[in-house]
Parts: sequence; C-alpha cells; structure tokens
Amino acid sequence: MQIFYEPDILANGGFLNEEEAKHCIKVLRHKAGDEIYVIDGKGSRFLCQIAEASPKSCKLDILKTEKEAPSVEQCHIAIAPTKSIDRFEWFLEKSTEIGVDKITPILCKQSERKRIKLPRLERVIIAATKQSQRLWKPDIRELTDIYSFLEKDHPETRKYIAHCEENEKKELFSELQKGEPGDSVLILIGPEGDFSSEEIAKALSKGFQPVSLGKNRLRTETAGIAACMSVQLTRSYTK
Amino acid sequence: MQIFYEPDILANGGFLNEEEAKHCIKVLRHKAGDEIYVIDGKGSRFLCQIAEASPKSCKLDILKTEKEAPSVEQCHIAIAPTKSIDRFEWFLEKSTEIGVDKITPILCKQSERKRIKLPRLERVIIAATKQSQRLWKPDIRELTDIYSFLEKDHPETRKYIAHCEENEKKELFSELQKGEPGDSVLILIGPEGDFSSEEIAKALSKGFQPVSLGKNRLRTETAGIAACMSVQLTRSYTK
Repeated sequence: MQIFYEPDILANGGFLNEEEAKHCIKVLRHKAGDEIYVIDGKGSRFLCQIAEASPKSCKLDILKTEKEAPSVEQCHIAIAPTKSIDRFEWFLEKSTEIGVDKITPILCKQSERKRIKLPRLERVIIAATKQSQRLWKPDIRELTDIYSFLEKDHPETRKYIAHCEENEKKELFSELQKGEPGDSVLILIGPEGDFSSEEIAKALSKGFQPVSLGKNRLRTETAGIAACMSVQLTRSYTK
Repeated sequence: MQIFYEPDILANGGFLNEEEAKHCIKVLRHKAGDEIYVIDGKGSRFLCQIAEASPKSCKLDILKTEKEAPSVEQCHIAIAPTKSIDRFEWFLEKSTEIGVDKITPILCKQSERKRIKLPRLERVIIAATKQSQRLWKPDIRELTDIYSFLEKDHPETRKYIAHCEENEKKELFSELQKGEPGDSVLILIGPEGDFSSEEIAKALSKGFQPVSLGKNRLRTETAGIAACMSVQLTRSYTK
C-alpha cells in the first residue's frame, strides 16, 4: 500500500501536508474511503482512511497505529558533501535505505562543496525513508565546520575517522565487531581531497580512532555507504 | 599518479588505445618522458615512460611491472538491470569500487529493462576500476535470460538468491560468515518487481539458498551493493 509522510499527523488533527495531499489526491487519484499508510518519521505508522479527498486539505481518520522504538545502536555519519551534489544525494538515499540514523554534513579544509540546500536534501531522505518502509526518518543537520563539530560532545560510544593518510589504521569492520550490543557509532568521512593532517590530529585528540575501509580507494560517497553498511552488519551481527 | 587502461599493452608493443592516448596527450597534456601508470585490468600495473606523445599513437616504455594474483574468493553478482539505467550504472561503479569480480545482467519475467548497451557499461566499469586503483577489472557479461543462466554450471561454491517473498530466509551475512576462506560466491538480485515464484523455485532447485538482506526494503541497485559489501566484509573477515 502507498506510504505518505506527515510528521505532524497526530498534532494537526489528521491532515496531510499540501505536497503529500496533492500527490495522494491529484496524482494517485485516491478518493474518500480509500485506505493509505502514513508515517511520521518518528517511529509510527498509521493505517488511515481518507475522510476528505481534497488536494488542498486531505483529512484522514486513523484506523490503526504501529509503533517502533528507536534503535539504541544509533549510526551517525558525519561526511563532507561531494563536489557533485548528485553523488551526495545518492549517498543520502542509499544510507537511508541501509539504515543510517543521523547525518551531519561537515565542512573541511579540502571540501570542494561549501554550501548545501537542506530542504532539497531533506526531500531525498523522506523519499528514501518511505521507499525503504522505515518508520524512523534519518535526521540530517546543517553543514557544520569540522572543528566546531569536533569541539561538541557526542553521545556515541564508538567514534572513528576514516582517512587516507598512510599510517597505523585498523579495519573499521573488525573494530566494530569488538563492540557491545547497544553501542552507538559515529564515523567521520572526509572530502574528495581527504582530511587535512590538522583535522586528523584534532579528531584523534578528541578520541576518534583512525580506521580504514579496505584496500580499494573509495570515493567519498562510497566510503559513506561502506561505513554505514559495516555498522548495519555488525548491529545484526552483535544482536 | 594518473592511471590509464590498456588491456593489450603487453601484446601490442606498448601502445595506448586511442581513447586513452587522446585523454593522456590531448587532455592531460602529457609529454614524451613523462611517467604514467597503465593497468591491463588483468592483475598487472605498469609504470611507463611516454616514448612518443601522439594522441593517435602514444608509445610507452615499461619501466616497472607489478602483478597481483586473482582472488580465489570470487564475488559474482547476477542482477536484473534497473528501469533507470543511471541506477544500474551507479551499481556498476560502486560494486567495482567495493570489489565485485563478475557481473551478469539477467533478464527476468518482471524486468522493466530488456536491453543494455554493453560498451557503455564497460566504460563505467573501466573508469571505476582506475579510480579505485584495482588491478583486476570486473568482468561484465551479456544480458542473459535467468532460466538459461540457471541452467548453466557455475563454479561458485556458495550460491544465493535474494528475493522479497515472505518465507524462510536466512540473513545473507550470517550465511556468508559460515563460509570457509577460499569460498567463491554467486548472488542473484531480482528486478524492481522481484523474481517470479517460478524463477525462485527454479533457483532453489539449482541449489541457490534463499537469503534476506535485512529488514528494510532495498532498491535493486542498493541490494546489489549490500550483497557485494557483505561478501567483501566476510572475505576480510574469514581471512
């Protein structure tokens, strides 16, 4: 069944937002009485019946509610947006499908992209959330300078930085396998030109472990997916 | 250093093909005496010096040769090309970066795409092979009907089919972890509309194990990457 997204469905008295209402009524031609699914992206899925089928104001009656608790094993990827925004949007779509929980775009010394349009990126994440049938929508933050990001306190129990400099690095996956069930993970992924030595030093001083993602050289967006997939597999692995 | 691709460099007396020669001499303005890397996609990387810098005939002297044996733990993904060719090309690029060895595009009952342009797909794979600094270029085959594919004998020691029908399926990753070092893997990934029940039954009768890729619903190209990444991680895991 078709899934729609309305974060405020409980608060707003059961109305779909205009974008979703238009898609539901105008594009998909749903009529009053039809049943649809609505997710709020905050762990709830609602089986709804359309009460008023207007593209401007689509009123729903909630027939059934399913809830899913948030995963304690949160996966947070802090990644430098790529020069080509398509590649970054692709990362957002895929990491959402695979199971990322939080994404922080970071601005690094060698970042080729210094601006992002958050509303557009948010739409990519919402579409992928619906498509992958997740009940929790990943949270994407504003573009943040890496030094201010590193100065913050982060709740994640395991913190890693995936950089390309030649030195003592362990494989991310084998490090993750040493984790305990319930661990949350934060992984830093650098820009096309890699992190600067200063950025790496700062991360290490803040308790981030240097890790490698294998012997092949991966593009930024591929590294992000590889990291996300490694966390996902160790989650199911440790459970 | 810049990497170029010439599969026949040893056989042809050290000449770059015209496409790579043009890129090397015209676009990147390399001159006689410059040193470049050339891979043949068959396990060798050559450090070369440009002897004749002509975009039509770029003659190279091989200064040094590095060889890498093929992995015994071959990863073969047989996957239905997606309706949007961009998504399939994206799969080819990413699976090449991650480490796939062989790709067979398969034609299924519910395939929305019934034709592919192999030379174009080959170019995507070559570019990703160079970019990821692999010495072995993944092998891509012609589009093959799934039944004729299943009738063939396949050398892989572990064979799986990732389908979406609700029934007894194990997680691909935990199945792979039961493998032995040296195992080779073949994984079938279906089209947007999934495999038909007949296709699934045929695969099972041919010794393919049904597997799941986790609880989220993944797009075809994402499933291909997730499968490829799972193999990659169990390779390093079992080693």
